[in-house]
Amino acid sequence: MEALGRQILVEFYDCDESKINDVSYIENSLIQATKASKATIISHNFHKFSPYGVSGVVVIAESHVAIHTWPEYNYAAVDIFTCGDTIDPWVIQEHLKDYFDSKNVSSMEMKRGMFRVPEGQKLLFKPDQNLQPN
Amino acid sequence: MEALGRQILVEFYDCDESKINDVSYIENSLIQATKASKATIISHNFHKFSPYGVSGVVVIAESHVAIHTWPEYNYAAVDIFTCGDTIDPWVIQEHLKDYFDSKNVSSMEMKRGMFRVPEGQKLLFKPDQNLQPN
Repeated sequence: MEALGRQILVEFYDCDESKINDVSYIENSLIQATKASKATIISHNFHKFSPYGVSGVVVIAESHVAIHTWPEYNYAAVDIFTCGDTIDPWVIQEHLKDYFDSKNVSSMEMKRGMFRVPEGQKLLFKPDQNLQPN
Repeated sequence: MEALGRQILVEFYDCDESKINDVSYIENSLIQATKASKATIISHNFHKFSPYGVSGVVVIAESHVAIHTWPEYNYAAVDIFTCGDTIDPWVIQEHLKDYFDSKNVSSMEMKRGMFRVPEGQKLLFKPDQNLQPN
């Protein structure tokens, strides 16, 4: 069996409260972390809730990075969904751990889209990664 | 232990290839399914890849719904991340199953943001859900 994608679910506990309540800081953190992984950013979209919390998504050619923060609990949930062999999703986790000053990180990696392929063949995660103009 | 959020990872296999390669159809499907769950939509953003595949995210006040499709494998990966008790994420899964004509669905529910709370108390998933103007 081979997988089309892999997804890392990260629980960032014991984060710096002010950092994970700052929408600009979070947006910049996710963009920098995503760039460091060599992923291709297509769009990003972040929202600040009142009085606490930020939600946001960076859509990448290789899938997405999403975040939801609960500063009042010093907690941020991050999902890193990738496909292909060219980017390393764990680089994103490592950068965000530092950006958020998280003292307690718990991660799980899932395989998504499982298919049986003939021996010696590989699953092509995308025939072509070029975006069509909308 | 109580959780701040819940996340449903859905594997939609054996979907209708043309439906899950149609960016407008997918965007409309996710919006309709999300509305049916009573979630509050904040933004949505979808992309079509050439020649195959669609990625997109609906950001909701209660977190997000994300999709990545591989029409060439009749497969779509969907993540439904919610918090609070007011919406039912499984409604979204059921609607999307019908919209995509998926003949084989596999789902897993994860709890996100686990905290120990004193007996008799509840974890508040958000002090206030109002969005601040950006």
